[in-house]
Amino acid sequence: MDDIEIETLADPELSDPVLIEGLPGVGHVGKLAVEHLLEEFDSEVVRRVFATEFPPQVTIEDGVAELASAEIHAVDIPAADDETDDADDGDVDLLVLTGDHQAQTNAGHYRLTEAFLDVAAGFDVERVFALGGVPTGELVEEPSVLGAVSHAEAIEPLEAAGVEFREDEPAGGVVGVSGLLLGLGGRRGLDVGCLMGETSGYLVDPKSAQAVLVALEEIIGFEVGFESLEERAEEMEEVVGKIQEMQNQQGSMPTDDDLRYIG
Amino acid sequence: MDDIEIETLADPELSDPVLIEGLPGVGHVGKLAVEHLLEEFDSEVVRRVFATEFPPQVTIEDGVAELASAEIHAVDIPAADDETDDADDGDVDLLVLTGDHQAQTNAGHYRLTEAFLDVAAGFDVERVFALGGVPTGELVEEPSVLGAVSHAEAIEPLEAAGVEFREDEPAGGVVGVSGLLLGLGGRRGLDVGCLMGETSGYLVDPKSAQAVLVALEEIIGFEVGFESLEERAEEMEEVVGKIQEMQNQQGSMPTDDDLRYIG
Amino acid sequence: MDDIEIETLADPELSDPVLIEGLPGVGHVGKLAVEHLLEEFDSEVVRRVFATEFPPQVTIEDGVAELASAEIHAVDIPAADDETDDADDGDVDLLVLTGDHQAQTNAGHYRLTEAFLDVAAGFDVERVFALGGVPTGELVEEPSVLGAVSHAEAIEPLEAAGVEFREDEPAGGVVGVSGLLLGLGGRRGLDVGCLMGETSGYLVDPKSAQAVLVALEEIIGFEVGFESLEERAEEMEEVVGKIQEMQNQQGSMPTDDDLRYIG
Amino acid sequence: MDDIEIETLADPELSDPVLIEGLPGVGHVGKLAVEHLLEEFDSEVVRRVFATEFPPQVTIEDGVAELASAEIHAVDIPAADDETDDADDGDVDLLVLTGDHQAQTNAGHYRLTEAFLDVAAGFDVERVFALGGVPTGELVEEPSVLGAVSHAEAIEPLEAAGVEFREDEPAGGVVGVSGLLLGLGGRRGLDVGCLMGETSGYLVDPKSAQAVLVALEEIIGFEVGFESLEERAEEMEEVVGKIQEMQNQQGSMPTDDDLRYIG
Repeated sequence: MDDIEIETLADPELSDPVLIEGLPGVGHVGKLAVEHLLEEFDSEVVRRVFATEFPPQVTIEDGVAELASAEIHAVDIPAADDETDDADDGDVDLLVLTGDHQAQTNAGHYRLTEAFLDVAAGFDVERVFALGGVPTGELVEEPSVLGAVSHAEAIEPLEAAGVEFREDEPAGGVVGVSGLLLGLGGRRGLDVGCLMGETSGYLVDPKSAQAVLVALEEIIGFEVGFESLEERAEEMEEVVGKIQEMQNQQGSMPTDDDLRYIG
Repeated sequence: MDDIEIETLADPELSDPVLIEGLPGVGHVGKLAVEHLLEEFDSEVVRRVFATEFPPQVTIEDGVAELASAEIHAVDIPAADDETDDADDGDVDLLVLTGDHQAQTNAGHYRLTEAFLDVAAGFDVERVFALGGVPTGELVEEPSVLGAVSHAEAIEPLEAAGVEFREDEPAGGVVGVSGLLLGLGGRRGLDVGCLMGETSGYLVDPKSAQAVLVALEEIIGFEVGFESLEERAEEMEEVVGKIQEMQNQQGSMPTDDDLRYIG
Repeated sequence: MDDIEIETLADPELSDPVLIEGLPGVGHVGKLAVEHLLEEFDSEVVRRVFATEFPPQVTIEDGVAELASAEIHAVDIPAADDETDDADDGDVDLLVLTGDHQAQTNAGHYRLTEAFLDVAAGFDVERVFALGGVPTGELVEEPSVLGAVSHAEAIEPLEAAGVEFREDEPAGGVVGVSGLLLGLGGRRGLDVGCLMGETSGYLVDPKSAQAVLVALEEIIGFEVGFESLEERAEEMEEVVGKIQEMQNQQGSMPTDDDLRYIG
Repeated sequence: MDDIEIETLADPELSDPVLIEGLPGVGHVGKLAVEHLLEEFDSEVVRRVFATEFPPQVTIEDGVAELASAEIHAVDIPAADDETDDADDGDVDLLVLTGDHQAQTNAGHYRLTEAFLDVAAGFDVERVFALGGVPTGELVEEPSVLGAVSHAEAIEPLEAAGVEFREDEPAGGVVGVSGLLLGLGGRRGLDVGCLMGETSGYLVDPKSAQAVLVALEEIIGFEVGFESLEERAEEMEEVVGKIQEMQNQQGSMPTDDDLRYIG
């Protein structure tokens, strides 16, 4: 096996495809968002990316092992105002990048992101959106969506869709594959945007994922139902309510350790 | 020295050889199992695999140093119902992979497993079994053997030999060389099974190793005596009895630290 | 992207350029010093060095992402006693190396420093100064500047500019890019000096940066104003005063944790 | 700079040279031993080995930087019973390997040891001795010297010189460059011995270094004075005496932290 190996599972004709990345991260916002797209729309896995930088690990489903990989799905999105869908009607298709793993080294992150961009190039992708969360340290009732882009001219259309650009935010920059899609994708001349939903950083956050998807709907031009995400958000609010009750009885604020990774 | 170097010590003609991996892991189940095979049957070392990813270390036996390596033994197994043994009678031979070391990096694990599979390919191996333990967190009286396979059609014959396939188990997947034999071996088209004996995770567990070997006997078709493993299991039970006594006097359950690596 | 990529942004004709390195380090002395030069003089970025050994990260400025890199600026310094400035008049130009990132591995540090020296070679650089701080563990009223050089004959001219050479100091040698500029630059035959301002090690230290620049002015022959650095130094002294007051009330000396990274 | 670079400083004709390795390790026994040889006999540095796996660091001596390296010295040893010394009289010369640094990764240790063996091969070295300490956990009055060898036939001559071979010792094998000289040197067909002086593991131990050198004198056939080592050993005994006094007053045994790295 080479350091990185790209397996082709399907090669559909795509219409002006946009790459959407949603790997695990703060509040699992990006991953929840892309998983919601894969649940709501028809899709097929078109590429699987294996890497020796991934953990030496298989997942087991129904007794059968699957080697650690990232997957790129082609998603067939009906246009928001036009339920017909064929490759020539100006509709937009999505390439959705998901997975559970990270590279082990700095260099591995770079090589892996280059591989993802190579796959995108094979589908003539010109636009990329990296979805994720930005931690606020406190519970957020109405999460805003912060933006970062590869080229300044991409700011205005995102602002028109309600994405906020704040001076010096996010303070620590953007890290991991999302950051490198901006950095390396931008250097390749791609139009890359990063949409980051505000989230406490303590909980899996379906509400923040929904806010990110609402912005994405507006930017790309599609419509998706949110019932299942809203249900999950309500479940989370119940959990949060119970935790706050317990904390109030103890007379202290919830700590990071109390809340982290609940969900 | 290259990053990985494979030394040839012997090149016997083998009959339909099956690769059996038993490197150190949870409860030392896999290692105990293959060591038992090497004790009970005639064998010879056929390959030694050196790797710059192994620790910079020699072991000393009788004053003489041996460089860190993994070893592949050819094991001559008399057929269960046919004590004659020549290469043409349909008997099965084993290639047993043992060792004490792990690679340092993710990429090292991948490269090393590829080297093991290359050795297996040189002997025309088509079937691989990775032996190991699956931690239950508590002492197990009658350990079951859990299975995972590279291809769904391999489940039925293993179930027929008493191996259990449970939904979503093991939850964390399979890691290390065992996991990659499933993942990388499966991608090469090999028929790979992983047999995992239930074990507390706190103790070296000969009883779990025996359960794994009983399943392997049935699957491959051979017979091995278990006296020495049973003796070791009895010794371990005495040790466990004493620890439980001590703990009871202190009025607390044994902790991980009390029990881990006892044996 | 290659492991290291050097992007050319401009290729000005430079007059006898001297490479000045000021990456982050003890007391941020080196970084403060070169940032002051970039504020006070006209400059342009001539090279950007990207490396897969840098963190997988972009910084965001005004919403636009910039991939982790080190930058080399050409700085146009008017001669101290001659306000005219053209490439033939014997003036000295500076190449100033700045950045926020370090390599992840030992080998990465070596490769990155070689890349910086390659850039310098492209501009026919023969002299290099690495600027930094040397920790004293206590607040220093009048910081001395310690020196280290690649070749013994370079000691005398530095001593003439007030740089001190003390036996067995700095005790731990010089580490990171500064150390390797001395070691690898020296092996290339370059005349490399390291100027280290004494600093507590607990605070960002503009006064130490000024001491280093005063020595550099004398050595290279230029003049720079210090108002802004002096203002920052006064601010820091107020901060230190307040901390000492607080500590006195608590009857204890400030600890590392109290002071580290204040500024 | 390549990953490893070997600089040639001199190329003397050597008579049947033996490589002696004494890098830092337990009780600094090996390093003390080879430093004593370099103090007592005439020597010159013949090779300097640089490696990107070494720390990015220079040491500063008299203001001048020297890049992290390992050094190989040719040592001119007068024969024990024959004070004349020319290359044809059957005398033995030494190649002494010293340094302060270790590789960062497993693979780095292997590559570096191979480089040392390449240097030795250039001088037609056939015998190698790795000097070091073996920790006993308690203060040793009369340190024995334990041995390990690359080939069984080398045991008898070492035993004749008082070196002890004990079953299953050292239990953890031999690690680092010493271990790999045994492992990789042995695979090259060299006659490699490791001489390990017993030492507490808590202190720099000149007495243990002397015991190792006494064995080496006998094995190779040379004579060296021990006054300076004996003086250092007496100083260490005073230090130990004081520590024991202090500990006795506190009614407790010295701990690892009390004693480690004293010297």
